[in-house]
Amino acid sequence: MSNKPTLKDIISANHRIKPYVTRTPLHRYLSLDRILNAHIYVKHENHQRLGAFKMRGGINLVSQLNEQERVSGVVAASSGNHGQSIAYAAGIFNTEATIVVPEQANPGKVESMENLGANVIFHGKVFDESHTYAESIAMDTNRRFIHSADEPHLISGVGTTTLEIIEDLPNVEVIIVPIGGGSGACGAGIAAKSINPDIKIIGVQSEHAKAAYLSWKHNKIMESPMETIAEGLATSTGYELTKSILRDILDDFILVTDQELDQAIVLNLEKTHNLTEHAGASPLAAALKIKDQLHGKKVALIMSGGNLSIPQLKIALKQNT
Amino acid sequence: MSNKPTLKDIISANHRIKPYVTRTPLHRYLSLDRILNAHIYVKHENHQRLGAFKMRGGINLVSQLNEQERVSGVVAASSGNHGQSIAYAAGIFNTEATIVVPEQANPGKVESMENLGANVIFHGKVFDESHTYAESIAMDTNRRFIHSADEPHLISGVGTTTLEIIEDLPNVEVIIVPIGGGSGACGAGIAAKSINPDIKIIGVQSEHAKAAYLSWKHNKIMESPMETIAEGLATSTGYELTKSILRDILDDFILVTDQELDQAIVLNLEKTHNLTEHAGASPLAAALKIKDQLHGKKVALIMSGGNLSIPQLKIALKQNT
Repeated sequence: MSNKPTLKDIISANHRIKPYVTRTPLHRYLSLDRILNAHIYVKHENHQRLGAFKMRGGINLVSQLNEQERVSGVVAASSGNHGQSIAYAAGIFNTEATIVVPEQANPGKVESMENLGANVIFHGKVFDESHTYAESIAMDTNRRFIHSADEPHLISGVGTTTLEIIEDLPNVEVIIVPIGGGSGACGAGIAAKSINPDIKIIGVQSEHAKAAYLSWKHNKIMESPMETIAEGLATSTGYELTKSILRDILDDFILVTDQELDQAIVLNLEKTHNLTEHAGASPLAAALKIKDQLHGKKVALIMSGGNLSIPQLKIALKQNT
Repeated sequence: MSNKPTLKDIISANHRIKPYVTRTPLHRYLSLDRILNAHIYVKHENHQRLGAFKMRGGINLVSQLNEQERVSGVVAASSGNHGQSIAYAAGIFNTEATIVVPEQANPGKVESMENLGANVIFHGKVFDESHTYAESIAMDTNRRFIHSADEPHLISGVGTTTLEIIEDLPNVEVIIVPIGGGSGACGAGIAAKSINPDIKIIGVQSEHAKAAYLSWKHNKIMESPMETIAEGLATSTGYELTKSILRDILDDFILVTDQELDQAIVLNLEKTHNLTEHAGASPLAAALKIKDQLHGKKVALIMSGGNLSIPQLKIALKQNT
């Protein structure tokens, strides 16, 4: 038996989460069309409540906890958006969330988790250290650990983003999606390929944290140094479930530099007037890199989140204007 | 007979424009709650197609042109968002739009009008000069001039924003809305007061371009120098229809400085992760100014638009970080 989610799981998730999430728009940007010589649509998950796509997964998972799990509370590790998502869902479904974040976590995301009532613990220089610590807390206290990617209910939840893309643009040809742990790309790929196997799914990751890329390419879990500024794309290891799904559904996997991510942040500000975090800007950075392949096509860029901090914004502007 | 729109006109507009506009979210921001000691909700018209609320009005009006008007084409003057709105609607309903913009118009907004197929003419140092010129072109060529504010169909169209606010938050107590020509505030006020006269409607304008404020206060059309950086709040004269409606529906009218607008732009970036143009940030600037009056209340801020240029963004950041 496989625990890989199916289209049916994504449709069930859609029904389950609908009362709690925003139906985000898919906007066409003619100014991006001109730059890319293609029909460019942006799926605005940065307009989602809490500014990121993740809560679609958090609500789908937390709403299905059993009574013992709910009463005991849940534990997660997060660079930011996963933690916000779990904290939000915990508030709705009346459980307690403990979130371990890296010491240098994005302060806006941390403030949001605290405002939502989560118990936030700072631990670890990088996400993977927070992850290990969170797992040990969950184990010691017999609470449910919610992995940031290898969770079928998270994947089904975030797959609803792509159901909405296809609802709005049935003849979409290419979907470009950011990859950190890979749950977003897995959800997008399962939804898209189940409906129309001809839709191309292209993943993006930072060159400076390419564990998921290497794991996908070599079809085994690999580690790689994590030196990117893009917290939402930052893991130093691939994960088993997402790796095996990505092998099935990804048509291509593009690596971009942090500098290219900063350029894309500024281009998004200028042409779409949206603030994007590095992960959220990565599909545009990838599109610029593979412009020739996209020529004349209908392309959806998943703008996964907008939670950039002011210091991050100033760096991007300084280097690109 | 009055040409003031009614709730029925706004409900009809809602039905008419629904296929063409985005149902924008009303998001709660706990981090703003803490700053303002109130329940703060943001109506995200910056998430609207083209990044501003105006197209709700443009579509409502252009869809109702008679055949002669449609065939001849329409003329408008705009600092940006009104022009984008008319250009967009003209494309949908198969008419031709000529838009006169000030010589120093926001280049992103101008590019958008051109991408949408409008004929853009640069004329005048400030909006009011563009306005006079556009009126003369329309007169000379026997085309329909679409005023940026004194148009019942624009007011009904943009009033749908407030229908949506009340649908999402029926017990809203205060709505703060930017005022340039005043169509947005008129629409908000008619919708809100018709449904619940207890909802307070508070308008905001720049201290450096307060013609609408003075016209409202003294109940006659008044002029005032226009020296604001906030193009969306910029007129140097009040208008007859909007002035007479504002007298009926406004509970208060707050003036803010350009510096306070820049502060609010940065606070929106930091706490909501949204890029706002000056007009779009003005409700937050006003809320900060009248914080004591809002204590404990359910407040909706209409974030009317997000079309800030990169140079404008850099100025705001430079002065506030």
